[in-house]
Amino acid sequence: MAEITAFGIPTRVHFGVGARDRIPQIVAEGVYRRVLLICDPGLLGTEMFEAISQGMAGVETAVFTGIDPEPKDKNVVAGLVACQELGAEAIVVLGGGSAIDVAKAVAIVMTNGGVIADYEGDRRFDTPPLPIIAVPTTAGTGSEVSGAAVITDTARNVKMAIRHPLHAPAPCAILDPLAVSTTPRKVGVYSGIDAFAHALESYVSKLANPFSDAINRHAMRLISGNIRAYIDNPRDEVAALNMLCGSSMAAMSFGTTGTGNIHCMAMSLGSFHAMPHGLCIALLLPHVAEFNMQAVPGRFADVARDMGQDVSGLSDIDAAARGLKAMRRMNSDLGIPSGLAEAGVPAEVLGRAADRCFQIDYNRWNPRFTTRDEYYELFEHAM
Amino acid sequence: MAEITAFGIPTRVHFGVGARDRIPQIVAEGVYRRVLLICDPGLLGTEMFEAISQGMAGVETAVFTGIDPEPKDKNVVAGLVACQELGAEAIVVLGGGSAIDVAKAVAIVMTNGGVIADYEGDRRFDTPPLPIIAVPTTAGTGSEVSGAAVITDTARNVKMAIRHPLHAPAPCAILDPLAVSTTPRKVGVYSGIDAFAHALESYVSKLANPFSDAINRHAMRLISGNIRAYIDNPRDEVAALNMLCGSSMAAMSFGTTGTGNIHCMAMSLGSFHAMPHGLCIALLLPHVAEFNMQAVPGRFADVARDMGQDVSGLSDIDAAARGLKAMRRMNSDLGIPSGLAEAGVPAEVLGRAADRCFQIDYNRWNPRFTTRDEYYELFEHAM
Repeated sequence: MAEITAFGIPTRVHFGVGARDRIPQIVAEGVYRRVLLICDPGLLGTEMFEAISQGMAGVETAVFTGIDPEPKDKNVVAGLVACQELGAEAIVVLGGGSAIDVAKAVAIVMTNGGVIADYEGDRRFDTPPLPIIAVPTTAGTGSEVSGAAVITDTARNVKMAIRHPLHAPAPCAILDPLAVSTTPRKVGVYSGIDAFAHALESYVSKLANPFSDAINRHAMRLISGNIRAYIDNPRDEVAALNMLCGSSMAAMSFGTTGTGNIHCMAMSLGSFHAMPHGLCIALLLPHVAEFNMQAVPGRFADVARDMGQDVSGLSDIDAAARGLKAMRRMNSDLGIPSGLAEAGVPAEVLGRAADRCFQIDYNRWNPRFTTRDEYYELFEHAM
Repeated sequence: MAEITAFGIPTRVHFGVGARDRIPQIVAEGVYRRVLLICDPGLLGTEMFEAISQGMAGVETAVFTGIDPEPKDKNVVAGLVACQELGAEAIVVLGGGSAIDVAKAVAIVMTNGGVIADYEGDRRFDTPPLPIIAVPTTAGTGSEVSGAAVITDTARNVKMAIRHPLHAPAPCAILDPLAVSTTPRKVGVYSGIDAFAHALESYVSKLANPFSDAINRHAMRLISGNIRAYIDNPRDEVAALNMLCGSSMAAMSFGTTGTGNIHCMAMSLGSFHAMPHGLCIALLLPHVAEFNMQAVPGRFADVARDMGQDVSGLSDIDAAARGLKAMRRMNSDLGIPSGLAEAGVPAEVLGRAADRCFQIDYNRWNPRFTTRDEYYELFEHAM
């Protein structure tokens, strides 16, 4: 931690069983008269959706559900029209990372004008967006607290990241176990392991710092300690709430620390072969961990501790190996396939994916410098 | 954690060696043309004060140093006059908890009008205070991130707490090792142990939650792991920065979780016998820990882990006992006297202090219910 860093959590996170009951209060305190409700189409009519809708009695609302799984600029344009037609003063969004990212983008364009592509990059807008109350239904992407939204520019066919450390996180997040009680099993597994990987990669990053360490270590503890119980029974309120808190925490730091090779490789591979992001993350996780732990064995020994391993009396590298074993066990317990090949990745894309990995330069953050050929070998091991 | 809780860190904390260099940038971004510099009188002319002053070239400034060690309403009145005369648009404060509390109070009255007594209690004002950039010179009270200011009402001779979870924390804090490099040894010891006790009491509180747990566990790790090196050499930049980060973290949660018997007893005893707050905290720490650990041995086992104790294979209560031993060792290594009597506390005040303890009802937060007579016995043990 050589340089000067800034840390804060601008999102006010309301969490607990029944946290949804805070929404009417927050809307009342903000004196919002017209609220756009953005909702994943599959969540219309769920118990959570109904609870939120009923809490808005007395407030003028409209519902917008035009969200693609990989959200696009045209979703933002349509959402903006709905927002303007209502004259919305705030947005409540119920959904996974895609819905929350669309809500963030609509909120930015609503107060800053133009189109979302105008704001690609870091701190490209100054006016605070429309206030957002984000209710994540996966645990998860952590989009409710992260300082970024990712939207596909359909004209250029590229994913744009729109980032602002102060204005991009939603001002309010609601972590309520009911919201993740009907998440499909695979979505729960993939997003949970993705959240674990956020915390892990941020913790071992070259830019890790005391504040990110605090949050990431506890995120790893919460996720590794609760993911099995939550996946086994998504209605387990304690496990679900711990997963929600862990996945939010895991997204509070990667804006300052960056991530690492797991996310680098998943993003690169994703450009050449479509597959669920979280599945790809899970398949890469143990291979990248084994590669990286040689650079920072002390950090990986902490990961083992935070995964509940007894590492008393072990050297750092032996302790780190226990953590690796725990990650492999987590994958197999949750039914992750044995490798990228079993998940349908063709061998012929690996070369181009490795090229891309080196180009996008996660060596800024990843604890071990990785060459193009090492990326290729890592992909091969993960097949 | 039965209820719905809210967590956030509204302060943006800038930390690192040379973090003071961020101040001119923050002032420029805020377009503040006139800035009041509030400073502990003893810090005038220090390297840190000069660095901050020089960074303000081009901005109109005035310096206010009217800070009493236990800050009073008249300090706030005088500070307000200085603020109004300058027409300040922001405040930079350099000092310990007293100076920062005065800065917070001046900032509140500057935008909300009236006198500071008008705002005693929770959320008693709505207008955001004047922006504050807080530079703590002890590690510490954590006032730079906490949601409270404590000011003595001289007419009634009572300490008023002015609290607001969103507006009372300073918007910006600067954690720079240079600022704590000249802290007198005793001040460093007392404030460091006080910070440890903040984290400990918040971690074992009845209202502890996943977010406070994350922050408090790491705060205990940082403080217990760095306090000796920092006290031995306050110019050790790594230890000093870890102490500053730890003490800020330790103050991020007690607004939601409350503290416990250590702070209850120190506050009560302080009404009947004047002594340094941090010294009193240090003297009470092991006795209260021994009493409380029976109620929540698992939590105290974590404390032992976070203090670096090897508790592998031990039961929770045996692990907790290791943590207790580590706290006693920390006290003796840092030269804390053997008991309250040695520190000059007369036996005849203990009865009234025990009465007061029970009245102020820290049983809301303290993990083990404590009767008036138990408070008395704890005081006696600590003599």
